[in-house]
Amino acid sequence: MRPSGRTPDQMREITITPRFTKHAEGSVLIGFGETKVLVTASVEEKVPPFLRGKGEGWVTAEYGMLPRATHTRGNREAAKGKQSGRTQEIQRLIGRSLRAVTDLKLLGERQIVLDCDVIQADGGTRTASISGAWVALRLAIDGLMAQGKLSADPLTQKVAAISCGIYKGTPVLDLDYDEDSNADADANFVLLENGNIAEAQATAEGATYDEEALLRLLRLARIGCTDIFAAQAKAVAK
Amino acid sequence: MRPSGRTPDQMREITITPRFTKHAEGSVLIGFGETKVLVTASVEEKVPPFLRGKGEGWVTAEYGMLPRATHTRGNREAAKGKQSGRTQEIQRLIGRSLRAVTDLKLLGERQIVLDCDVIQADGGTRTASISGAWVALRLAIDGLMAQGKLSADPLTQKVAAISCGIYKGTPVLDLDYDEDSNADADANFVLLENGNIAEAQATAEGATYDEEALLRLLRLARIGCTDIFAAQAKAVAK
Amino acid sequence: MRPSGRTPDQMREITITPRFTKHAEGSVLIGFGETKVLVTASVEEKVPPFLRGKGEGWVTAEYGMLPRATHTRGNREAAKGKQSGRTQEIQRLIGRSLRAVTDLKLLGERQIVLDCDVIQADGGTRTASISGAWVALRLAIDGLMAQGKLSADPLTQKVAAISCGIYKGTPVLDLDYDEDSNADADANFVLLENGNIAEAQATAEGATYDEEALLRLLRLARIGCTDIFAAQAKAVAK
Amino acid sequence: MRPSGRTPDQMREITITPRFTKHAEGSVLIGFGETKVLVTASVEEKVPPFLRGKGEGWVTAEYGMLPRATHTRGNREAAKGKQSGRTQEIQRLIGRSLRAVTDLKLLGERQIVLDCDVIQADGGTRTASISGAWVALRLAIDGLMAQGKLSADPLTQKVAAISCGIYKGTPVLDLDYDEDSNADADANFVLLENGNIAEAQATAEGATYDEEALLRLLRLARIGCTDIFAAQAKAVAK
Amino acid sequence: MRPSGRTPDQMREITITPRFTKHAEGSVLIGFGETKVLVTASVEEKVPPFLRGKGEGWVTAEYGMLPRATHTRGNREAAKGKQSGRTQEIQRLIGRSLRAVTDLKLLGERQIVLDCDVIQADGGTRTASISGAWVALRLAIDGLMAQGKLSADPLTQKVAAISCGIYKGTPVLDLDYDEDSNADADANFVLLENGNIAEAQATAEGATYDEEALLRLLRLARIGCTDIFAAQAKAVAK
Amino acid sequence: MRPSGRTPDQMREITITPRFTKHAEGSVLIGFGETKVLVTASVEEKVPPFLRGKGEGWVTAEYGMLPRATHTRGNREAAKGKQSGRTQEIQRLIGRSLRAVTDLKLLGERQIVLDCDVIQADGGTRTASISGAWVALRLAIDGLMAQGKLSADPLTQKVAAISCGIYKGTPVLDLDYDEDSNADADANFVLLENGNIAEAQATAEGATYDEEALLRLLRLARIGCTDIFAAQAKAVAK
Repeated sequence: MRPSGRTPDQMREITITPRFTKHAEGSVLIGFGETKVLVTASVEEKVPPFLRGKGEGWVTAEYGMLPRATHTRGNREAAKGKQSGRTQEIQRLIGRSLRAVTDLKLLGERQIVLDCDVIQADGGTRTASISGAWVALRLAIDGLMAQGKLSADPLTQKVAAISCGIYKGTPVLDLDYDEDSNADADANFVLLENGNIAEAQATAEGATYDEEALLRLLRLARIGCTDIFAAQAKAVAK
Repeated sequence: MRPSGRTPDQMREITITPRFTKHAEGSVLIGFGETKVLVTASVEEKVPPFLRGKGEGWVTAEYGMLPRATHTRGNREAAKGKQSGRTQEIQRLIGRSLRAVTDLKLLGERQIVLDCDVIQADGGTRTASISGAWVALRLAIDGLMAQGKLSADPLTQKVAAISCGIYKGTPVLDLDYDEDSNADADANFVLLENGNIAEAQATAEGATYDEEALLRLLRLARIGCTDIFAAQAKAVAK
Repeated sequence: MRPSGRTPDQMREITITPRFTKHAEGSVLIGFGETKVLVTASVEEKVPPFLRGKGEGWVTAEYGMLPRATHTRGNREAAKGKQSGRTQEIQRLIGRSLRAVTDLKLLGERQIVLDCDVIQADGGTRTASISGAWVALRLAIDGLMAQGKLSADPLTQKVAAISCGIYKGTPVLDLDYDEDSNADADANFVLLENGNIAEAQATAEGATYDEEALLRLLRLARIGCTDIFAAQAKAVAK
Repeated sequence: MRPSGRTPDQMREITITPRFTKHAEGSVLIGFGETKVLVTASVEEKVPPFLRGKGEGWVTAEYGMLPRATHTRGNREAAKGKQSGRTQEIQRLIGRSLRAVTDLKLLGERQIVLDCDVIQADGGTRTASISGAWVALRLAIDGLMAQGKLSADPLTQKVAAISCGIYKGTPVLDLDYDEDSNADADANFVLLENGNIAEAQATAEGATYDEEALLRLLRLARIGCTDIFAAQAKAVAK
Repeated sequence: MRPSGRTPDQMREITITPRFTKHAEGSVLIGFGETKVLVTASVEEKVPPFLRGKGEGWVTAEYGMLPRATHTRGNREAAKGKQSGRTQEIQRLIGRSLRAVTDLKLLGERQIVLDCDVIQADGGTRTASISGAWVALRLAIDGLMAQGKLSADPLTQKVAAISCGIYKGTPVLDLDYDEDSNADADANFVLLENGNIAEAQATAEGATYDEEALLRLLRLARIGCTDIFAAQAKAVAK
Repeated sequence: MRPSGRTPDQMREITITPRFTKHAEGSVLIGFGETKVLVTASVEEKVPPFLRGKGEGWVTAEYGMLPRATHTRGNREAAKGKQSGRTQEIQRLIGRSLRAVTDLKLLGERQIVLDCDVIQADGGTRTASISGAWVALRLAIDGLMAQGKLSADPLTQKVAAISCGIYKGTPVLDLDYDEDSNADADANFVLLENGNIAEAQATAEGATYDEEALLRLLRLARIGCTDIFAAQAKAVAK
């Protein structure tokens, strides 16, 4: 029934290539099927103005899509002179999600910026970004710890994200572009390894949904995140 | 326990003044306690470029906060030269929510723009905006119908929105500013009168939450929206 | 002869609701007939860079029009990314007018920002803004004095503003939208309670005018400002 | 008493060099003493969108100041990415002033853009711009008439502008920078050759002023404009 | 003598991965040593306004650097709201270089946009972009030809680009970042396979140079481009 | 053969009017035939952030074209809200060229800004700007030396720039607009009085060129710069 032939609760292949670029303190190329996102973590020994002198750090994110990551070329945001509402919404979500698993006091007065750039898009770019950002952040913090700059590990646990949706009346896991552009409802869940929820967003597109559907989407998300946690663990193992 | 002395499932007073301004095809001043939002609905006999010639209409929204709607003055977005990510996220949510109850084919090739301007803010400005926008939209469509411009009513049912959150460990309904700025989790639900969900968003702020908490927040939202639906009905009655 | 049936020297009804919003140090909703402007005064304990360390304060203004304050919806300036020339011209005029009655040395190193937001427009929005701004400023300074932050009252006297114009050959007071859009000449006067002039601006629209006409417009403005001073006095009385 | 040694009603030397540049349909370098403005008139065979198909033309203006026209270098507006409120206010005034003497129907569906660029500033740049713009416009229209593109002359009469102000208590004509930056009040008058007024703007800077002062400023302006009209006439004579 | 141990006329390893992404009509990941640039060619069946109706096509380019492509993170241009002068200069150069080998009449009324995004930077990003852009353009045009949309091949020959410079007094080929940031002079040559020059740019950084040095740099560039032409040929072979 | 009747190696008349404006520390109006550029040098007792506290100075440039400097009116960059890529490319070139002859340590912690504004354009505006900028810079530095602010002259020698190109198959010196818009190749050389090269840029427009042509263009440039150096010397002599 799914265009890709997957079963409703089947993820696409998850591929994680840690240390994909050489300059960043942490970097990863993450793939959810044909969706490919490059995430870098940059450590900066300064914090935004609102945190100066408070002894706390900050984790933030920026998101971008290369103009031809998509089926038809989109305008370059740098050339248009502004980031779209969609871009800003996504980068705010990524930042919040990673801060949910970071003890900002333990990080100290420094900032880690997570740049998520979509090389190729096939649905799920924001959830791949979050899932990859955890790997880049883990690598960057490992580096800080190896340099003795942290007294304790500020990263409290894993976080992952996945999209689900109602496609032709059936809740399915990990929407690809064909499904995403025709779904009745579209949800993104950001889950912690301990089972807790950092963010739940479920939006009616073609049709509104009921409480039962919301719960089924959440359960699908749990299945998907279990796979992502395993892939993350493997990627950051020595 | 709540700073306002309300019980956990108690809404603030809902006040709706329809036809608050005279030029707009629909207008309303809506209050959730001390939060006051002016919503106008403007009918335009044209549609955005992507819909031209398709025989369908569009409903969209813009959101703004007067600089001193808040405790301390915020910069005017027109003077800064751009809308914040928060503003764009909110106006996209308002537009989606109202489109969820509008049959765009029945609307015909015209656009209705919902301008939501926050006169005074005390938490819940986006949910008050959505709830008020339904009233303004209803009034504007009533006008179109009275003029014989529509063959059938494109507004399929009521939509309302309310915030809930986990405050000092307890799920509570309709957060005011004091609660919102200290909540562990913060949720917004957009519900239809038939019980369906148009949008669910639940974000961990201070602490992540579990599935049980998500369900309790949704149930609180149902209580609040019941009150809002009643107030909307009263406001649009002749 | 006037569309509204008013006599040439007749003002529209002046309505002033002080303390219209709760967060601002001073606030007012002022109406000149159907023109309604919300003005807030925000006290900030800092001054612009060019005044730092000089022991003087500053009074400045910003002006905006809600998109559907007018007959047809105008584009939101925050969405367009810039303020129009008209907006900037008006906010510069409001700031200058209020500084004309403020002793900036007595104000001390703090700034008061006057935000004038037009809720509904029917001609005369800039003059209503100036007249209302005086009330908001008076309330904000009263607050500073009550807190013992000022050694003496920096507000030297009242200031008010009114538009006049030549409509169908006749000088008339307080143009509404119908008159304003068809006037041969259009003037705005900012007057002090002691009779002095802070600003005179008279512009030919359809036809140029002579010195005699300029003087008649000024005399009409004196009549209108007398009414406004009385309404201001009443609004700020305890 | 004046820094320059001039009497209160004495203009600076007026210098007008017509046809200063070769590409524009009309051009002039105008000097009021050390203030030097280059004005070009560009004829475009199209009108702004709001006038299309109405059989009428348009006259508009843009104003700029070279970064080092002034005592200390100002930021280049093109580099800052926006025009200041002052710039926009001035260019609106220039456009209105020239339209006051142009019969837009006789001009036909074409636009004339007046670019006023200040090469060197010493007070009075906006009034020199208006006075010079008339010359550039006259030359451009002469060219259109010579080409047989106009059935009748759309320029109805001369327009000129001059600043006056109250300096150390005395009304004086044609303020230079030293006076302008210390004046109690600062006025700009745009006058027609037939004695009528197109625009009067009188602003209190250090001190407010009375009706008598306003009239004395206007009379000084009449003296100055008489000189400018003579210089304009000489400049456009063959 | 060179930090990398290369001889003065030794290129870094050239790596070209054609068809790196799936949506674009042509795409390539090109590496000059550690410099990695992703280039996509997007075919659009429309031309810029200045070419409409002329029966000719257009080839243009955009360039961007991912924020952490470099040693320290740079600000994202989309977030800053404008492209730097450097970015614009580079993308103009890339566009000109590819147009030098494209017969725009044979291309027909369509545009090909070359997006060059630097994934990792180690000197020579603009020359890698040009060299890779030829491959992406070749692939895109091959696709158009395979679809029968072109009557003849509009790509006249190969173009490649390479940087050279004077490093510690010695002319060297293909500067890496360590060399580039310490070079006395820095040159970029865009050469055609037939030996002709499309662009020569040689800039003094630390010290000016003489004619003899300019010629030696050009000869080094010929050596480098010979290697690039070979790598390009191999990449586009079936 | 040339539209102007000049021989291939013949410059247009060079005119240099030093001290053209009165406020700038250095200023000049330079003409290459009908191309006229006003250059001012502004001394600022501060440096850009990246140089603070390093005991070095900076020389930078900005470039602009008055809207009607050209045959048809161009949009004003300040009104469009951004500088074009061409403008930024030119101002970067001017700055680099003048820094090539300035000892920034001897200049001390101050900045000199060279504003190059094109009053009238007829080809060669960037090379006239560089050549004129040297005169303005020389005058500004003479002023600093006369005030005893410099221990030694930071200007090491003269710099000049000229365009050359291949027009109808023949290399020619100092292209005017008619030639420039039809040239096969277009080059700009920035040369020092000692014969060295600060910048060489040669771009194929209609046709690529060979090494021999590049050398012939350079030799023409040497002829032109000899004339410019003489004119510069004469202009700055007392």
